[in-house]
Amino acid sequence: MLGTAAIRLGCRVAILSDSADCPAKGSCSELLVGSSASLDSLKKLAGSVDVLTLENEFVDSELLRALEGEGTLVFPTAQSIALVQDKLLQKRVLAEHSLPVPEFEPLDDFSAMKEIGQRFGYPFLLKKRRNGYDGKGNFTVRSQEDISKAWKALNGDQNGLYAERFFPFNSELAIMISRSKEGTEVAYPVVETIQKEHICHIVKAPAQFPRSILEEATSLARQAVRAFNGIGSFGVEMFLGPEGNIVINEMAPRVHNSGHYTIEACECSQFENHIRAVLGWPLGSSAMLAEGAAMVNLLGAGDGTGWPQGIEKALGIPGAFVHLYGKEKSSVARKMGHVTALGSNVGKALQKAERAANALQFGNV
Amino acid sequence: MLGTAAIRLGCRVAILSDSADCPAKGSCSELLVGSSASLDSLKKLAGSVDVLTLENEFVDSELLRALEGEGTLVFPTAQSIALVQDKLLQKRVLAEHSLPVPEFEPLDDFSAMKEIGQRFGYPFLLKKRRNGYDGKGNFTVRSQEDISKAWKALNGDQNGLYAERFFPFNSELAIMISRSKEGTEVAYPVVETIQKEHICHIVKAPAQFPRSILEEATSLARQAVRAFNGIGSFGVEMFLGPEGNIVINEMAPRVHNSGHYTIEACECSQFENHIRAVLGWPLGSSAMLAEGAAMVNLLGAGDGTGWPQGIEKALGIPGAFVHLYGKEKSSVARKMGHVTALGSNVGKALQKAERAANALQFGNV
Repeated sequence: MLGTAAIRLGCRVAILSDSADCPAKGSCSELLVGSSASLDSLKKLAGSVDVLTLENEFVDSELLRALEGEGTLVFPTAQSIALVQDKLLQKRVLAEHSLPVPEFEPLDDFSAMKEIGQRFGYPFLLKKRRNGYDGKGNFTVRSQEDISKAWKALNGDQNGLYAERFFPFNSELAIMISRSKEGTEVAYPVVETIQKEHICHIVKAPAQFPRSILEEATSLARQAVRAFNGIGSFGVEMFLGPEGNIVINEMAPRVHNSGHYTIEACECSQFENHIRAVLGWPLGSSAMLAEGAAMVNLLGAGDGTGWPQGIEKALGIPGAFVHLYGKEKSSVARKMGHVTALGSNVGKALQKAERAANALQFGNV
Repeated sequence: MLGTAAIRLGCRVAILSDSADCPAKGSCSELLVGSSASLDSLKKLAGSVDVLTLENEFVDSELLRALEGEGTLVFPTAQSIALVQDKLLQKRVLAEHSLPVPEFEPLDDFSAMKEIGQRFGYPFLLKKRRNGYDGKGNFTVRSQEDISKAWKALNGDQNGLYAERFFPFNSELAIMISRSKEGTEVAYPVVETIQKEHICHIVKAPAQFPRSILEEATSLARQAVRAFNGIGSFGVEMFLGPEGNIVINEMAPRVHNSGHYTIEACECSQFENHIRAVLGWPLGSSAMLAEGAAMVNLLGAGDGTGWPQGIEKALGIPGAFVHLYGKEKSSVARKMGHVTALGSNVGKALQKAERAANALQFGNV
């Protein structure tokens, strides 16, 4: 989706992927096959481009720093990525900027777990500092008996972990911010996200909460992206508590699933604004083109090909924008595509998107 | 733009181009370099794909027929292309279906020119039967003295030509029709096109004429596409005479410049509907998402690179959707990109699109 946005603006896109047959192959002029954990591969990519950017936060920031040292323009910067990709550092930066986060604590060894349980109470969360996503790398410690299981599940002897006090939330909010090198920002509408087994399932745009809450969420998200000197499109995930109190759950230094709806629903999508931001161009408007929008993820139901059953039924539903990612294979809960719909309100948009999404099935058919 | 639409639907796209560095390189999974006039190259492409389609009408229909003979699915069919790509045959098909066209006459040799001038009066039009576009391949014969010049300019001794009575028009209309294999059709709004030296310069959607005229134009366009058994998106260009009378000027058996606005302005673009049609999928809605839309072509002002001056200014204009084609080089009047804008009416949309278009300059800077 980033490639498509860049191509529309006349850019040439080179991509580094570990697979010669990756879905992005159809949206780039040059596909380099290699590992983003290899400095050599990254250097090869850097040699092909004017600006290097990321679509995930898993590239080691030290490698990015090495590229910057050789003169490559990397946006977001290695420093931003360093502070976001280590979730403990991320929490510290947010806390240092007086931004609300659930109480957290580094965990250097197993022996500290019990004391944390006493201090935070149960349940509390055990999290990997790096490489977690969609709930992977998190463990909910429900009682003292879970402590050993949690430590083993996340391999605490090998991985840096930290603990987080459970924040009882009613809803999850998210917001995309695109920020330029000069510090200009564009904030997209606050959306409500509904997860299914820790994976983003539904996005409602805009979120249907009082204006004061939406304004507070937007203000926090703007401050958060500034705290990391973020350049490009950044996702900010938040929890909304029962008293309307908001904490920041997690930052994503990249385009984000909660912003896919912006392709059809906003004047300038999160993808185009990411490209504009990293190229130093003026940002586009995040204004919505409809009163309501909704996005439903298409998740694999089981093992199978990447091509769904039901395409004719789904495309027969007027106003549903079907996106299929062209992945080679489906597996349980793998993101295989998404559907966006617009409407005169969020509910109507969601109905349309769900009808199309329900018509499509990946794997186990 | 076809590639981008196909990729969003999870398709893999293979392209045959005579250049390894063509703009479409960034929107396909496989680029075959070869000539679309070579049966071998076309066979290679046919071997890579489930369905073969065209983005211009210049591939010889006999070659397409040969591919069909070997079992390749070609849409539009070789037969449709044969009847459209020879403009004399095209006119005959339209006339046989009682559709209004300017009076025309085949020209077998130079000696017939003078008699045609007497019958049609001056000016009349001399046209190449094949491979004309954007006014290339046409000659306006303004007086008897022009006859030799016209014949030579179009190389009448080599090329099949025909003559057409001049139709005095006030406006030019165009309409896109997407038609499926089963004969289902979707008609896009009638648009007004404004040419600049025979090249589409501005498109206003919808055209601002009385409903009866728009309905008549739509009805004629539908009948015309059916007359050729068109499958895919077809453009129909029409002239609107001073008394509200309409004649069909030309058919395009493909996505068309007058339909580029549909990317942002319509629920399902001409490109997506072309892909849906040739794959046998249900067609999407052509409903407009705004009251008005306008498109302005970005034409080269002179020789230069394919990259414009003024990108920052153009992207700073809210609501202007800038499309740059990433062509290697600019030349006078070459189509380098386009700008679309939406608005609460056509006039407001056009203002936005023109502001952005005027900010961009290709070549001669």
